[in-house]
Amino acid sequence: MVDEKIVREEIMNLKPYIPGKPIEEVKRELGLDQVIKLASNENPLGPSTQAIEQMKEAINKVNIYPDGNVHNLRSKLSTNLGVESDQLIFGNGSDELLVMLGQAFMRSDDEVIMAETTFSEYEFATKLMGAKINKVPLKNNTHDLEAMAKEITDKTKVIFICNPNNPTGTIVKKDEVEKFLKEVPDDVVIVFDEAYYEYVESTDYPETINYLLDYDNIIILRTFSKIYGLGGLRVGYGIANQSLINYMERVRQPFNVNTIAQIGATASLDDSDHVAKTLDYNRQGKEYLYQEFEKLGLEYVPTDTNFILVDLPMSNDKVFEEMLKEGVIIRSLSSYGYNTEVRITIGLPEENKKLVKVLKDVLGV
Amino acid sequence: MVDEKIVREEIMNLKPYIPGKPIEEVKRELGLDQVIKLASNENPLGPSTQAIEQMKEAINKVNIYPDGNVHNLRSKLSTNLGVESDQLIFGNGSDELLVMLGQAFMRSDDEVIMAETTFSEYEFATKLMGAKINKVPLKNNTHDLEAMAKEITDKTKVIFICNPNNPTGTIVKKDEVEKFLKEVPDDVVIVFDEAYYEYVESTDYPETINYLLDYDNIIILRTFSKIYGLGGLRVGYGIANQSLINYMERVRQPFNVNTIAQIGATASLDDSDHVAKTLDYNRQGKEYLYQEFEKLGLEYVPTDTNFILVDLPMSNDKVFEEMLKEGVIIRSLSSYGYNTEVRITIGLPEENKKLVKVLKDVLGV
Repeated sequence: MVDEKIVREEIMNLKPYIPGKPIEEVKRELGLDQVIKLASNENPLGPSTQAIEQMKEAINKVNIYPDGNVHNLRSKLSTNLGVESDQLIFGNGSDELLVMLGQAFMRSDDEVIMAETTFSEYEFATKLMGAKINKVPLKNNTHDLEAMAKEITDKTKVIFICNPNNPTGTIVKKDEVEKFLKEVPDDVVIVFDEAYYEYVESTDYPETINYLLDYDNIIILRTFSKIYGLGGLRVGYGIANQSLINYMERVRQPFNVNTIAQIGATASLDDSDHVAKTLDYNRQGKEYLYQEFEKLGLEYVPTDTNFILVDLPMSNDKVFEEMLKEGVIIRSLSSYGYNTEVRITIGLPEENKKLVKVLKDVLGV
Repeated sequence: MVDEKIVREEIMNLKPYIPGKPIEEVKRELGLDQVIKLASNENPLGPSTQAIEQMKEAINKVNIYPDGNVHNLRSKLSTNLGVESDQLIFGNGSDELLVMLGQAFMRSDDEVIMAETTFSEYEFATKLMGAKINKVPLKNNTHDLEAMAKEITDKTKVIFICNPNNPTGTIVKKDEVEKFLKEVPDDVVIVFDEAYYEYVESTDYPETINYLLDYDNIIILRTFSKIYGLGGLRVGYGIANQSLINYMERVRQPFNVNTIAQIGATASLDDSDHVAKTLDYNRQGKEYLYQEFEKLGLEYVPTDTNFILVDLPMSNDKVFEEMLKEGVIIRSLSSYGYNTEVRITIGLPEENKKLVKVLKDVLGV
């Protein structure tokens, strides 16, 4: 019998993930020709055309196993970032790197500190290892580093800082981070998840790679899923000093990053025009949506990312469902414990217009 | 300080994986124009041309996250296999499914039984969870199910059976498996790793899916990395009854199988010509290599896969190195504890000829 008695008790606290429906399924079920997805913070411009070309060329060789050492991507990235090649580790998306952090560091009697409202996979990775979770409330929609530092005990093993934070879009600033770093013992691993790093416009955002000169207990996570438009291919990376990377490498599966992801990511790094264009569109879309939200009298959180948290005058789940019927998918934040907040990805101009139109219809304004 | 004191002690038994060099690097370093890789049991014909077409078409949409539910592939595969769609689980290669089995079932005081000479990732997945490994020697290069059954204690949690076995290419037969199943308690998870399922020619090979009617504690693993020629894309799957799948789903990362892998795998299932052609080439190559090995007086293990274990009259590492210099990569089995055995993937006719020529040169015959 395969039942609770034979599984690890830790996993009884985990629920199977129920994914959203694919766009194609939404179209079919609701009889819609066009569906706009502004729910998962994907790059609305698609991947870099240079990356697309190189990935297409490589498709006929996917019978060969991936380069387990991720040689070409590692080499280019280490040059771009100014770190040694053995200061990098690659994952099947940052999701996998989070699980690997747990596998490398979290024991069942360890404590892990994270924000109360942040990316859900930190909780998943921690529960998977059976470590204890200590959630610290946000302050003004932002990580409260002072409060988080106060929660550190001699059992604290890992602290997750999502910067910018998902789903609020806020950052913790350079001076706050530097103060915090001095307060954290050097046997606690600090994870800066910077999935939206490239989108940040605030000038007081910390350049955390600099801290690696002084701190061995920091790991920075970044991804090709957001600005580089490769979310469907799964490639994220970690930057840290060699001792931390070496322990993470022990738990890595030999061929965890697929060939096409490696090629697409490497090519994307060369396409600075694509990044610049993406940032332009994002800035314009952000200004447009800010203005429209203000006209509608909606409160929103100013963002350093490609998404905006907006507070609505009615149930977020209800708005989600009504907008879905009109072919616009947004993210209700009910699973984060919010009742009226939604998260909206900044899309292309015509997508943003459609979003505003449908939102007005649903709100009846 | 990131040191032994803060990492999980289990991972001190794990070593970072040292991957083989990519073909391109071998070419560059050794100044070779052409390099043949007969080391990783890849399909020498490449992926299905239908799959290639569909994957190319999808490349420009990889900015969108994968379907976390693997809907289309799941649907087609469940029809083909005659199982319910919720009897399937997908992984970033079978490698990930092995790790997920550990995460779902293995506690540190559990015991795990596997063959002494078999696929190395069973040991990795088990060590990752700190469970105890009990390795049972092969008998005539084949899993010794009788001896394995005798090793079961009340602490046994998982038994791995690689069928056909990597690196020997041998199978355990239907009658042996059926006898074994009756001897294993129903709270022990039995894993049939059938990565080479499609290549089997022996008529007494068990159709393990049939056993799911009577056994909830069986999971069958298969892959798109071998006959379907998608090793570079990472997609494997597990077949089991719902209770076991449900526990595995709890530890699955939401977007673990990338979009292009899902599309390539789905398309590959429709291309029965590609499978038939691959099997034809494999049969011909096998007969040719058998004959050549016999002419050379080399002992080999008759195979039900796309690779052959051959015993050589000199050091396997030495032969590997000498052949590499001539542009032929094979797998030395020194890491499996063998001194003179190598594993050779059956290639295309011209590759097999080159292999034999270079092997003769190196052996000096």
